[in-house]
Amino acid sequence: MWGGRFAEGPSAIMREINASIPFDKALWRQDIAASKAHVAMLGAQGIVSADDAATITDGLDAVAAEYERDGVPENWDLEDIHMTTESRLAELIGPAAGRLHTARSRNDQVATDFKLWVREAIEQTDAGLAALQHALVTQAGRHADSIMPGFTHLQTAQPVTLGHHLLAYYEMLRRDRSRLADARARMNECPLGSAALAGTGFPIDRDATSEALGFARPTANSLDAVSDRDFALDYLMAASQIALHLSRLAEEFIIWASQPFGFVRMADSLSTGSSIMPQKKNPDAAELVRGHAGRVIGSATALMITMKGLPLAYSKDMQDDKPPVFEAASLLALSIAAMTGMVADSTFKTDRMRQAAELGYATATDLADWLVREADIPFREAHHITGAAVKLAEQKGAALDELSMEELKAIDERIDERVYTALSVEASVAARSSYGGTAPEQVMRQVETARKALGIAEGNDT
Amino acid sequence: MWGGRFAEGPSAIMREINASIPFDKALWRQDIAASKAHVAMLGAQGIVSADDAATITDGLDAVAAEYERDGVPENWDLEDIHMTTESRLAELIGPAAGRLHTARSRNDQVATDFKLWVREAIEQTDAGLAALQHALVTQAGRHADSIMPGFTHLQTAQPVTLGHHLLAYYEMLRRDRSRLADARARMNECPLGSAALAGTGFPIDRDATSEALGFARPTANSLDAVSDRDFALDYLMAASQIALHLSRLAEEFIIWASQPFGFVRMADSLSTGSSIMPQKKNPDAAELVRGHAGRVIGSATALMITMKGLPLAYSKDMQDDKPPVFEAASLLALSIAAMTGMVADSTFKTDRMRQAAELGYATATDLADWLVREADIPFREAHHITGAAVKLAEQKGAALDELSMEELKAIDERIDERVYTALSVEASVAARSSYGGTAPEQVMRQVETARKALGIAEGNDT
Amino acid sequence: MWGGRFAEGPSAIMREINASIPFDKALWRQDIAASKAHVAMLGAQGIVSADDAATITDGLDAVAAEYERDGVPENWDLEDIHMTTESRLAELIGPAAGRLHTARSRNDQVATDFKLWVREAIEQTDAGLAALQHALVTQAGRHADSIMPGFTHLQTAQPVTLGHHLLAYYEMLRRDRSRLADARARMNECPLGSAALAGTGFPIDRDATSEALGFARPTANSLDAVSDRDFALDYLMAASQIALHLSRLAEEFIIWASQPFGFVRMADSLSTGSSIMPQKKNPDAAELVRGHAGRVIGSATALMITMKGLPLAYSKDMQDDKPPVFEAASLLALSIAAMTGMVADSTFKTDRMRQAAELGYATATDLADWLVREADIPFREAHHITGAAVKLAEQKGAALDELSMEELKAIDERIDERVYTALSVEASVAARSSYGGTAPEQVMRQVETARKALGIAEGNDT
Amino acid sequence: MWGGRFAEGPSAIMREINASIPFDKALWRQDIAASKAHVAMLGAQGIVSADDAATITDGLDAVAAEYERDGVPENWDLEDIHMTTESRLAELIGPAAGRLHTARSRNDQVATDFKLWVREAIEQTDAGLAALQHALVTQAGRHADSIMPGFTHLQTAQPVTLGHHLLAYYEMLRRDRSRLADARARMNECPLGSAALAGTGFPIDRDATSEALGFARPTANSLDAVSDRDFALDYLMAASQIALHLSRLAEEFIIWASQPFGFVRMADSLSTGSSIMPQKKNPDAAELVRGHAGRVIGSATALMITMKGLPLAYSKDMQDDKPPVFEAASLLALSIAAMTGMVADSTFKTDRMRQAAELGYATATDLADWLVREADIPFREAHHITGAAVKLAEQKGAALDELSMEELKAIDERIDERVYTALSVEASVAARSSYGGTAPEQVMRQVETARKALGIAEGNDT
Repeated sequence: MWGGRFAEGPSAIMREINASIPFDKALWRQDIAASKAHVAMLGAQGIVSADDAATITDGLDAVAAEYERDGVPENWDLEDIHMTTESRLAELIGPAAGRLHTARSRNDQVATDFKLWVREAIEQTDAGLAALQHALVTQAGRHADSIMPGFTHLQTAQPVTLGHHLLAYYEMLRRDRSRLADARARMNECPLGSAALAGTGFPIDRDATSEALGFARPTANSLDAVSDRDFALDYLMAASQIALHLSRLAEEFIIWASQPFGFVRMADSLSTGSSIMPQKKNPDAAELVRGHAGRVIGSATALMITMKGLPLAYSKDMQDDKPPVFEAASLLALSIAAMTGMVADSTFKTDRMRQAAELGYATATDLADWLVREADIPFREAHHITGAAVKLAEQKGAALDELSMEELKAIDERIDERVYTALSVEASVAARSSYGGTAPEQVMRQVETARKALGIAEGNDT
Repeated sequence: MWGGRFAEGPSAIMREINASIPFDKALWRQDIAASKAHVAMLGAQGIVSADDAATITDGLDAVAAEYERDGVPENWDLEDIHMTTESRLAELIGPAAGRLHTARSRNDQVATDFKLWVREAIEQTDAGLAALQHALVTQAGRHADSIMPGFTHLQTAQPVTLGHHLLAYYEMLRRDRSRLADARARMNECPLGSAALAGTGFPIDRDATSEALGFARPTANSLDAVSDRDFALDYLMAASQIALHLSRLAEEFIIWASQPFGFVRMADSLSTGSSIMPQKKNPDAAELVRGHAGRVIGSATALMITMKGLPLAYSKDMQDDKPPVFEAASLLALSIAAMTGMVADSTFKTDRMRQAAELGYATATDLADWLVREADIPFREAHHITGAAVKLAEQKGAALDELSMEELKAIDERIDERVYTALSVEASVAARSSYGGTAPEQVMRQVETARKALGIAEGNDT
Repeated sequence: MWGGRFAEGPSAIMREINASIPFDKALWRQDIAASKAHVAMLGAQGIVSADDAATITDGLDAVAAEYERDGVPENWDLEDIHMTTESRLAELIGPAAGRLHTARSRNDQVATDFKLWVREAIEQTDAGLAALQHALVTQAGRHADSIMPGFTHLQTAQPVTLGHHLLAYYEMLRRDRSRLADARARMNECPLGSAALAGTGFPIDRDATSEALGFARPTANSLDAVSDRDFALDYLMAASQIALHLSRLAEEFIIWASQPFGFVRMADSLSTGSSIMPQKKNPDAAELVRGHAGRVIGSATALMITMKGLPLAYSKDMQDDKPPVFEAASLLALSIAAMTGMVADSTFKTDRMRQAAELGYATATDLADWLVREADIPFREAHHITGAAVKLAEQKGAALDELSMEELKAIDERIDERVYTALSVEASVAARSSYGGTAPEQVMRQVETARKALGIAEGNDT
Repeated sequence: MWGGRFAEGPSAIMREINASIPFDKALWRQDIAASKAHVAMLGAQGIVSADDAATITDGLDAVAAEYERDGVPENWDLEDIHMTTESRLAELIGPAAGRLHTARSRNDQVATDFKLWVREAIEQTDAGLAALQHALVTQAGRHADSIMPGFTHLQTAQPVTLGHHLLAYYEMLRRDRSRLADARARMNECPLGSAALAGTGFPIDRDATSEALGFARPTANSLDAVSDRDFALDYLMAASQIALHLSRLAEEFIIWASQPFGFVRMADSLSTGSSIMPQKKNPDAAELVRGHAGRVIGSATALMITMKGLPLAYSKDMQDDKPPVFEAASLLALSIAAMTGMVADSTFKTDRMRQAAELGYATATDLADWLVREADIPFREAHHITGAAVKLAEQKGAALDELSMEELKAIDERIDERVYTALSVEASVAARSSYGGTAPEQVMRQVETARKALGIAEGNDT
């Protein structure tokens, strides 16, 4: 009945399903830090003697040094990082180790450790996004007036500038960073001292441990503190939105790099070549970033399902909180770094882009706008007149500005010579100078604002 | 080939798949408001004449009055709420209607309308949560010292108070409300004036429309503004966390209402009875709240998948943004209201709860803590001694405090008479007076803090 | 406290959250059919008299006629389609109506109705897929030798034929149809007679009702029968895979329709034009199909979450099973029809495709294969030699077959004149004649196999 | 800019994001097997010489022996298991190794390897489910007449037998196994020979490799063959449904094990005790099974999102297919084993169950049915009369069968003495003898059918 890896029967199954040490050993630094804060407080409050507190602290430092040097040992019988550490501490310092667990339980301990880990993941993710923003702003500054087709429905719609396009991603990441900041602020309450679920009768000082660990305040309800995994979900949800934004940028690079577009040449370092097709640069990194979005979002979904319908307080289901977060954080760090490299090191083929922008009557809207502005024609009517002009141009196989004044007048006599100045792609982008528009001056304004926000000195764009 | 509802062939399919009017008519108030702000600005900037602006404004008011009175007509050939309104406007006021669409496009229009709708949904959700918090705090005030078993793993662990348990949900909702506030602040940038994707050449005043519609500022990048649905995801993600919290509370009510628990009697108004089992009160509302969590989270998943990998700028896929948001908002409003009623109107059977708290040696931890505190025994050793005491009690079929002093001394002679005072459930909860703990005084402190935060006058708990 | 739509308080909330009639009225035909089968059996078994059975049957027919004519009335106080029908039946035929519910309960009734509905949805989805396969096979037959670039990583890799490409989707849909067939076979067990959860003491004949309703057999366990929603999940999962396949085809149409590709001209009927850019055909239908994939998959996720962790037997959460299924089925029907139209009515620009296939040294692999085959060089070495040849060609700005024999011999002297025959795109596709390969003859074999499977007479390709 | 682990810059990022060897080394057995089948066919077809084929085969065996002994080396520069193996083969046998890759590519190779892996996972999952069914049937046989409360809405509804309840899960798993069988049959087509995407010009024999690897036939379309991950999704979807079923059973064990229920005592081997609360048995294994459902479903969601919208043929995104499948398979194997142990080794407290079944007027329906059957009263009216009887019993604090005949006659004079025989819980379950009902004889029939299906000899229930 119990073939294969469970030949020993239920006890072997239990050891394997119950052990979290294979993954929660990633929390060792946080576990040591929280234990040190806890024992310092126990000592200060006289709950353990100063001597015991010092012995325990030194012991924890010794354990940490061992972990740093040799890694965390993975003994399934010790179940998790908490028991692994306490057990090693007892070997090193003897019975005094037994005083460390006074006035706490694994329930508040793991909540504290995991929060510390997520808080750091937030900070690292934010730093990664800042670097990617930097790369975007730098390229945007270089390409504030590089003209490309702006697409809607992946159809050429109106000319835009490449700088403007790249800054759209700057904006998305700006929102992502604000999401991370919000998540960090919301989660920054310390569960330590909530004990198993009900608080403790020892005269602990929760403000002290909270402050020592960099939290803004202790959590206000012990039942909630040990049952709460909102902070992990907040992170996974922010991660999901980041992954979505990266998936969009990745999709664009993949399309732009395909031969019929040819808008970009990927850096060698972030693509795979082919020894038989030297012109081929497979955008593997971009594809993996796009693919990873699935797994990041899957992680968020996983934890939501796990938490659904759990009664208070701690349930063991919640041990399934860490693998999704660890995986998402790792995939995300890699994805952000890959996109940063891609943005920074790709070569944009601005000639191909400009050429493409001239196809497709992308300035037709400019003609309509000119009619409204200069001839005071209602927009819907101007729209209609423009349609006739483009239809004629198409029949003649000509561009809009290749129609003669007679031809244009025949369509609507309110059109005059001044119209030609509106119909080039340069005129088109220059005209769209409303706030947030694609005009190069607007793009440079956005670049300057972004540089300031990122703390980049002027002229320093590397 | 085209049987059934598509007998006419592709054009019938296209009309049906393309029409968003069946659902986006829910945006009519927002669409009218945004158009009025737009035309007021066009008038102020001299882009349309003052007369035209006034005519259009009056026309929009007339259309709104019709919608209010008769509902929005659902003509699939007019596709969406924007064309439906503009078309009716043209019928009412003639060609001047054609000037309304100057310097905007459906892309920025729909982004603006939808943001306004989501902003209002956030506000309504927040108000619902405040009412639910109010109900929780009121019951918590009543039950600050009602003792119940605190569970971990759904096993009796330590006694807690019902007030403390209910306040755990107050805390969850406090975080939910901060999530909504963050989402509202982040989304509150006005897309109007971004036009199709590139901005516009008309001398518009984006600050004016932004302010008129209650936004904090205009969006900074027109490509981003028409491609962004982060705000809808922010709402759906906050909604998912709210739904998860409600699913946990619902699960507890369902378990508590089952005969073996018998902790609660649901209000008649929120349960279904059975004419043949009068004692039966099916917790239908709680079950539906728990079930709805699936659909709310499914909505968030849906929109994430839809947005994954979309290149800039607007793609028609994004039309699938509204049904998930509308459905989630509706299910959530109903769920919050149902839980509010359940919390406010249920009768907690405190006798059954207290009885259950006394089973299961729930105060064993108190014995261990007493040994640490009074006899200075390391926690791990105290834990061990307690195990022996409980084992003896279990063999005798007695409660812990029914063991004689001789029996206790035989286990460990450091135990003395004072221990009995620690072993009642009342003593247990009273002792856990650390910040956030379950002691009635702590619970009342939390209640007071919550009342203040909610603006509830003292003594007013209805 | 109960502002807005719940001003009446909890009873108003309960009426709204509890009522399923707004959506389950879609089950009316199934509900009538199941009731008729049930009462016929009750009559045959003598559980109700023949007279009563006849009266009830006539009454049900009368109710059905009313529904057909006037629609199903939506009275929330009657909660669901079952009570709505029974209540109307009682009005029509009096107390005999009370005998219909003998030996059944709403729990087995709704399971039966919903299964019947899903079974029909499976059949309709399958018919839709068959039509789409027909369209694919028809176009594949026309384009068995139309050459286009085959992409990996969206980079030109090797020439393939358009027919071959389209038939890849035929294969996906073949698997999808087998999924539907499996789901249909697995679900086809009749729950009727399971009663509330425990079966019944009446001498019913479950084989009779099962057979009357077209089921293969009755379900074997009454607790399972009323708790099971696997069949709905089976459908949603098959629907998700179908939606994924359609999303891939949609993505290709969108990319192919973009100006830089220009591989396809969408039918007017399934795209939206622009009066000012007449050459623009927005692929709205394809985008909506791609977007709908999110909502279909979201529906599957929703129901999985709802079912997670539900104890037996029936829980009210399960009422949230229908909206996701109804929505997915509707979106899917529309998506399949739209893709069918798109495949059938699009014009493929085979010149552009062929042109694109010649760029990018797509036949480099053919050179390597030639070296292996004709000069017995290990593949890895041949691969290396080919790399050198392509590099040279690239430096000269020439195609591979424009290199001179001297140039080729300089790279590897084992190359001889015969190589040129291998380097055209026609030769390349013709060579790949392994089973399942892209050679036109292979494609025609696949087309013939598919035509047979679909029952399409030869030569009949419309 | 490139701090931390990417200090070297983009090339370090690329090496890490691109390397699949950390996870795809799990495919080594499949990769060796597929290569051996391929080279045997190349030899048989004369595409490589008999000598080379033998050398390569021996070399592959040698590599396999090394892997078996030392594990697969993880060199990121070799990217994946395919290059790792081919590279080691070249070291061992020299240039002949370069002939192995003739007429194939990594695209068809990885599809083949992964299919073989998934096929084996299906078989192992199926074997696990068979063992769990065995445990369920064994306990059901023991408890065919152990009475417990049957719940709807977690409210006591009607008495059922524990055997009947456990067999409901047998049915769910029966469907799950049919899902696995369907998936296995559908996926069992061999991609090998599809090469990069277009097939090959070498005279390969795809039937031979297909047969050698145990496939039913080769895939029919090479573009589809390298782009298809349906088989992985089929597995993940079946896994999701299995996980859902296990989550329901786990939920029941958790609730049954809680003190107020006390229906089950978990085996020591599958619960964690507490040294201070010896009566406490935390149902950790059950909770982890319930929690794992989230991650299994999250894996299915992840891969669906990853595949959404990918154009043909192979894209690198598809490298994200394996981690979700590997994780789900591992979590599922553990979950099935844990539930098998739990079912087999738990002690059901049948006294507590029977006691609970007698509360809550669970036989009220039996009174109603008696009235219909014996007094020919329409069900709805019988329902009403029963309501009055239960109401009276409740007022008196009595059970239904403790009401006197006078009291019953006062409610409805058609009631007579025979009614008492219908009102015990034993009579209630015995009466429900319709097919699939809870009567012990029916349960034993189901047990026998199940034993036969599982191949369990009669009387052998261990």
